[in-house]
Amino acid sequence: MSDPDILATLRDLLPDGTVSTADAAVLGRSIDASGAPAIGAALALVQPRSTEQVAAVVGAANAAGVPVVPQGALTGLAGGANAVPGALLLDLSALNRILHIDVEERLAVVQPGVTVAELAAAASAAGLFYAPDPASAEWATIGGTIATNAGGMRCIKYGVTRDAVRTLEVVLADGSLVRTRPSTIKGVAGLDLTGLIVGSEGTLAVVTEATLSLLPAPGPSRGVSAVFPTLAAGIAASNAIAAGPNVPSTLELLDDIVLGAVDAYLPHAGIPIGAKAWVLAITDSVHGADAELSAFERIFREHGALTVDRADTPIELDRLLTARRLLNQAMRALRGGSLNGDVSVPRSRLLALVERFAALANELHVVIGVGGHAGDGNLHPVVAFDPGDPEQVAAAHEAYQRISGIAQQLGGTMTGEHGVGIEKLAALDGELPPRLREMQRAIKAVLDPNGILNPGKKY
Amino acid sequence: MSDPDILATLRDLLPDGTVSTADAAVLGRSIDASGAPAIGAALALVQPRSTEQVAAVVGAANAAGVPVVPQGALTGLAGGANAVPGALLLDLSALNRILHIDVEERLAVVQPGVTVAELAAAASAAGLFYAPDPASAEWATIGGTIATNAGGMRCIKYGVTRDAVRTLEVVLADGSLVRTRPSTIKGVAGLDLTGLIVGSEGTLAVVTEATLSLLPAPGPSRGVSAVFPTLAAGIAASNAIAAGPNVPSTLELLDDIVLGAVDAYLPHAGIPIGAKAWVLAITDSVHGADAELSAFERIFREHGALTVDRADTPIELDRLLTARRLLNQAMRALRGGSLNGDVSVPRSRLLALVERFAALANELHVVIGVGGHAGDGNLHPVVAFDPGDPEQVAAAHEAYQRISGIAQQLGGTMTGEHGVGIEKLAALDGELPPRLREMQRAIKAVLDPNGILNPGKKY
Ligand SMILES: Cc1cc2nc3c(=O)[nH]c(=O)nc-3n(C[C@H](O)[C@H](O)[C@H](O)COP(=O)(O)OP(=O)(O)OC[C@H]3O[C@@H](n4cnc5c(N)ncnc54)[C@H](O)[C@@H]3O)c2cc1C
Ligand SMILES: Cc1cc2nc3c(=O)[nH]c(=O)nc-3n(C[C@H](O)[C@H](O)[C@H](O)COP(=O)(O)OP(=O)(O)OC[C@H]3O[C@@H](n4cnc5c(N)ncnc54)[C@H](O)[C@@H]3O)c2cc1C
Repeated sequence: MSDPDILATLRDLLPDGTVSTADAAVLGRSIDASGAPAIGAALALVQPRSTEQVAAVVGAANAAGVPVVPQGALTGLAGGANAVPGALLLDLSALNRILHIDVEERLAVVQPGVTVAELAAAASAAGLFYAPDPASAEWATIGGTIATNAGGMRCIKYGVTRDAVRTLEVVLADGSLVRTRPSTIKGVAGLDLTGLIVGSEGTLAVVTEATLSLLPAPGPSRGVSAVFPTLAAGIAASNAIAAGPNVPSTLELLDDIVLGAVDAYLPHAGIPIGAKAWVLAITDSVHGADAELSAFERIFREHGALTVDRADTPIELDRLLTARRLLNQAMRALRGGSLNGDVSVPRSRLLALVERFAALANELHVVIGVGGHAGDGNLHPVVAFDPGDPEQVAAAHEAYQRISGIAQQLGGTMTGEHGVGIEKLAALDGELPPRLREMQRAIKAVLDPNGILNPGKKY
Repeated sequence: MSDPDILATLRDLLPDGTVSTADAAVLGRSIDASGAPAIGAALALVQPRSTEQVAAVVGAANAAGVPVVPQGALTGLAGGANAVPGALLLDLSALNRILHIDVEERLAVVQPGVTVAELAAAASAAGLFYAPDPASAEWATIGGTIATNAGGMRCIKYGVTRDAVRTLEVVLADGSLVRTRPSTIKGVAGLDLTGLIVGSEGTLAVVTEATLSLLPAPGPSRGVSAVFPTLAAGIAASNAIAAGPNVPSTLELLDDIVLGAVDAYLPHAGIPIGAKAWVLAITDSVHGADAELSAFERIFREHGALTVDRADTPIELDRLLTARRLLNQAMRALRGGSLNGDVSVPRSRLLALVERFAALANELHVVIGVGGHAGDGNLHPVVAFDPGDPEQVAAAHEAYQRISGIAQQLGGTMTGEHGVGIEKLAALDGELPPRLREMQRAIKAVLDPNGILNPGKKY
């Protein structure tokens, strides 16, 4: 089927205004927040308003052998939603209804275009809690977070998005609609197709409805942060908390490069002189929060903290989070350009990881600052470079590739939460043995025999 | 390859004493605790002592097209480990070493033959906690609990076995050895093959090593139980706790039939007259346990509890658990025979579920008692019958089949934690749409193209 044919088919199937081939519309949704270039020019932007329309689009595309790129809010950081040649960009953000919040069963049934923040607010209004909380929560869609198995700052206590997904309704590559399992808490009648689709980055199925577990409302978030005279002390303190009896809801780290960048970016953020590492531990426990905060503070002091700050109110906590929130902006401001990594290692290798990044930065004459979810062993190294200087651009890209290899050599992964997309395809060789990659491709072929769902990504 | 050929090959590959064709040995390991008959006569019992030996056996079996039935402790309740015609019974219980308990990373690396109780004890000795806790923990192996995604009494707070599995080393059907992912907490580089293998009942791969998450040690377990004048009141109380702010570590229910059976089996268990439902809530919180127990007690009283018992010591708690622990024995003692179901429904359907079982019991003139993990919506209906009375035997089997259908009609599943094995194959039609079953078989064919791994089970 030629391009005009599929477009004519879609225009027959769908209400007016659903399909657009206007350059501005198509180009405007061709790349995600990674900034990675599209693989090629998409054919059209398709914006269905119902599950039936999604099924119709995918079915028609499959029959015509036309690629489909599922898209949420395009906040992805791996190019997962980027355009591929001749593709339909399938924007799911108009399927944005919260269908049901069930207080008795503690679950929410939502369409994929609902944002994480909208669901979190609805859960909260019902006295409940949606745990997944990527920093992009204001914009990121439930569909996108499911497709990437998104993380965030609360994973150390609550797990990742997969842990919150009860069951999915999905449109398969042939346009048929299936529910992956009943919405019961437990169930072992089938293979875990739900878990398989979570994190599959739009390559196995299109999520059209999700049933998500909610939790009882936590207590108020309160935290304590500290800065340390050495990176080793900061990481040791973080690891002591992570291995201790009190599980924080958040445990974050920034290294000295990031602290310097933040200080330059926002001189009044109050980073003390000589600070080589910053650690923040938050608790949201209903019972025992005071004791937990004191325990965190004690651990910080035992590890030689230079200063310790405690936040008992939301406003104070917001202030403590300032430096962490500025990680990406401040690093980018250093030289004008940045590349964001997403490695994860066993916690005992965190110090080695950051030290090896420092050596790499030295070797390649780039700047690498590191911060992130130390409690999970999941850090975001940011490579800063001058985009106007071709040598720096090349060095930064080399550094970015080698960062993945370093994490892999330390028993880790090149991507803890952002996904493979197109940005991390090259690093897969260092991580997944050929036998596993072959198996994954064969599973992909089972669900999507014509290879229409987000081709060129993930595998 | 004929039978003698594969046996000769195995005897060449393996140390003396690893392969046995003696009737007593083979028959002795041909059925699991379900008591379901074997599908056919196995060829040999193979008891490897190392991963390399497992790989050699599976590789040779695959080349010869000989079926392999992975086996743990044979405590399974679905016939999953039962013999199939001409199969090698691959007993993994001699791979029983705890390789590593890592306090910093909070994980354990174990061979599949380690029992759940052994791992729990080792974790506890290190000040940590292995959460999965099936009632069969003394015998059940880690490999068996992974293959069935076993549950238990603590799932309402800690989840199921899948939630504890970090990464697996598995022997694939062709005899090759792969690790499913790095041991990091987070990681999204590949599809979730780990989760796919958990719960696959030995049909996708043989687990030869598991890396499992451990948790900080909980507080002492303390509980409160109550009996109610109506089933509706008991279930409403249980649901009020489940939907409340305090998540118990255990929330169990017994109906009046079970209470009567327990009273007959052990007259001094202290079941009050007129008790139509029994509910037990346990907390193991480190902080706030007193407040939680009081909240549970208050909910019981608000729902009209006839009596409330509180257990603050392990001995007292053990006493409270007596009736629950006797569920299966007491029901079996009623008439001599029993069939154990394992349904799971949304919690709001629990009352309807038990009422429909009562109606079914009436209609078929059988006895059905119900107890189990009400907090998860996962109950074990037990059909009691006289094995000497062919009419009762037939009625009991009919009831057992219809129990699954009732759960499915109520939006639930026929198996919450025991698995499909061979016992529940017939009920799959009512649960998994043809498209999903086809997809599962195709995924099975990707991992096991010759269909040698536990054929005739699960799908
Ligand atoms: C400022 C900022 C902060 C961030 N913080 C975090 C963080 O803390 N943790 C974290 O994990 N990530 C974070 N991210 C990355 C990003 O927000 C997440 O990956 C998020 O899950 C993407 O959601 P989205 O709706 O924008 O999806 P998109 O970017 O549109 O798509 C992401 C992937 O999902 C697929 N997809 C989208 N919708 C569907 C669907 N309905 N069905 C099937 N496939 C679909 C796409 O094909 C693509 O592969 C951050 C990004 C930004 C810009
Ligand atoms: C008294 C009693 C109480 C029980 N309580 C519970 C409970 O509370 N919760 C619950 O969920 N279950 C319970 N069960 C059921 C049973 O204990 C579990 O299913 C358990 O997981 C089986 O472990 P096993 O080692 O005995 O495995 P087996 O019965 O030997 O095998 C079970 C399945 O796992 C496969 N398998 C075994 N080892 C491996 C391996 N290494 N690799 C791949 N596949 C393998 C087998 O092929 C089979 O399909 C109970 C059983 C009994 C008898």
